[in-house]
Amino acid sequence: MSDSLPPEFALIAKYFRPLAGPGSMDLRDDAALLTPPPGRDLVLTADAMVGGVHFLPDDPPDLIGRKLLRVNLRSGGQGGDATGLSDDGFHPARHAGKLVRAFTAGLARDQAEFNVTLLGGDTTSTPGPISLSLTIIGHVAPRMAVHRSGASDGDGIWVTGTIGDGALGLAVATGRLVDPSGFLLGRYRLPQPRTGLAIGGVASAGMDVSDGLVQDLGHICRASDLGATIEAALVPLSAQARAAGEGWLETCLTGGDDYELLLAVPPSQEAALRAVAEARGVAVTRIGAFHSGPAQVKVLAANGEPLALTKGGWSHF
Amino acid sequence: MSDSLPPEFALIAKYFRPLAGPGSMDLRDDAALLTPPPGRDLVLTADAMVGGVHFLPDDPPDLIGRKLLRVNLRSGGQGGDATGLSDDGFHPARHAGKLVRAFTAGLARDQAEFNVTLLGGDTTSTPGPISLSLTIIGHVAPRMAVHRSGASDGDGIWVTGTIGDGALGLAVATGRLVDPSGFLLGRYRLPQPRTGLAIGGVASAGMDVSDGLVQDLGHICRASDLGATIEAALVPLSAQARAAGEGWLETCLTGGDDYELLLAVPPSQEAALRAVAEARGVAVTRIGAFHSGPAQVKVLAANGEPLALTKGGWSHF
Repeated sequence: MSDSLPPEFALIAKYFRPLAGPGSMDLRDDAALLTPPPGRDLVLTADAMVGGVHFLPDDPPDLIGRKLLRVNLRSGGQGGDATGLSDDGFHPARHAGKLVRAFTAGLARDQAEFNVTLLGGDTTSTPGPISLSLTIIGHVAPRMAVHRSGASDGDGIWVTGTIGDGALGLAVATGRLVDPSGFLLGRYRLPQPRTGLAIGGVASAGMDVSDGLVQDLGHICRASDLGATIEAALVPLSAQARAAGEGWLETCLTGGDDYELLLAVPPSQEAALRAVAEARGVAVTRIGAFHSGPAQVKVLAANGEPLALTKGGWSHF
Repeated sequence: MSDSLPPEFALIAKYFRPLAGPGSMDLRDDAALLTPPPGRDLVLTADAMVGGVHFLPDDPPDLIGRKLLRVNLRSGGQGGDATGLSDDGFHPARHAGKLVRAFTAGLARDQAEFNVTLLGGDTTSTPGPISLSLTIIGHVAPRMAVHRSGASDGDGIWVTGTIGDGALGLAVATGRLVDPSGFLLGRYRLPQPRTGLAIGGVASAGMDVSDGLVQDLGHICRASDLGATIEAALVPLSAQARAAGEGWLETCLTGGDDYELLLAVPPSQEAALRAVAEARGVAVTRIGAFHSGPAQVKVLAANGEPLALTKGGWSHF
């Protein structure tokens, strides 16, 4: 047997090894090894994306790599610091080389931007669509992680950035909406994770908005055993989302793919929230409040009446 | 909006939540949180499996769940202890409920057997075949992890158990070989990971045999910058593999799916290896030795001549 690498390992050596960081053993081993920072808790997050479900078949593969990393940087949403990632890729064998080349180029760019390195993973062929899963490992000071449970009666409901652009970007990508500025499509393809916001000890509960504002707010309600009421008119929309018109409001509220933070913040912490947000140049907006009662989300229209929504958000099944 | 769960989250609550352990937040959060055992290094492994590639479309889903966990228990191969896992599943939406029910039943059974719990993950729909990826997190005493690099000239080449049963089991499953005992099919569908073997400080290098003995031995050769010579007649075969006949020898040597350990052991540590193996009731066999020279694997036939193999092992691309 020659000492040349089988094609699968040549692909890993050429495209994945340059992304590998400390503890990865240069991807030459079956496992990565890392010494956790002393006195910190570990944060693990995992997300999966499938061609035709989470991105469109003709989305550029480098942007797919960047989006996969960005949607997974949720340890930021928990107030932690991400350090490394493990990537499992299922690639159609016929296009594997081309896909992996572009995918890893995108990953390299955003690994540098968000200061994480590749620890390991698995690359396999599939007769199906390109499918990707990423696990991020990070760390956080003990008791400083922000969870879905923990909100209290009277806490304000806050969001970062603007809501709905991702869902509208998908509408642009599929020809249902026109946005000559390219802003909405960009927000769909390349979300901006709100890492580095020091929300530990400031927010009483939180998560990122991935499946739609209303549905994700429902998760915090169930975990915190509270009701929530938000005012549609307070939900921050981009100029492009406002330009789309009232007919797209429900899409903005329920469409998902925002990756903005949704936070519960006690009134006593509002100044602290504004300070940490300003330090990172991130807008924060109060859109409602939690209150005792059934774990339900009420959305009020401008006239004060409850808005009837036809769906809450995204569900895979 | 009602407080009932969307179907995706109902599925997670019903089937995955019972598998969740400490740090998982009962799968109610975006992230898992764990406090690493003080003074231990973390070991991370990841493997992916695809229907039609790693298992047959009609393999029972509970066995698929168990196999996924077992092939991933590689931190055992590194001499570490596995503690938790994160599961990403891509399920065809039409069968999702049935698949997830059986898959998690298998996972539950083997989580109990191997003492690991679910930390988190993602469950998503796919228009393609069922695809699964698992990340295992474990820990090991500092400097006790066994890597692919580290073998020395003169170290013996050792394997646990028997080699080739998995590949022959695939031949049985696809109708190319008959084995009325069911042993070979069982070894393909339900490999036995060699966890709990205290090989740290005993083996100088090691990995598990997943892509074929010869190819995987080549990985240790490249990582340790050594050549390797094994004798085909020394490779331990099960009675069922011997019964298949000489014509299946190459399949046994190159077919993969064994998940036995392949170790480099200095002569001074052979007694120690036998002791740790005996403590776990695992057979260990010396099949050759590492030596200085090009990073190549030579397989000798019974007559001392090199055996000509048509392929080294499995490659996805």
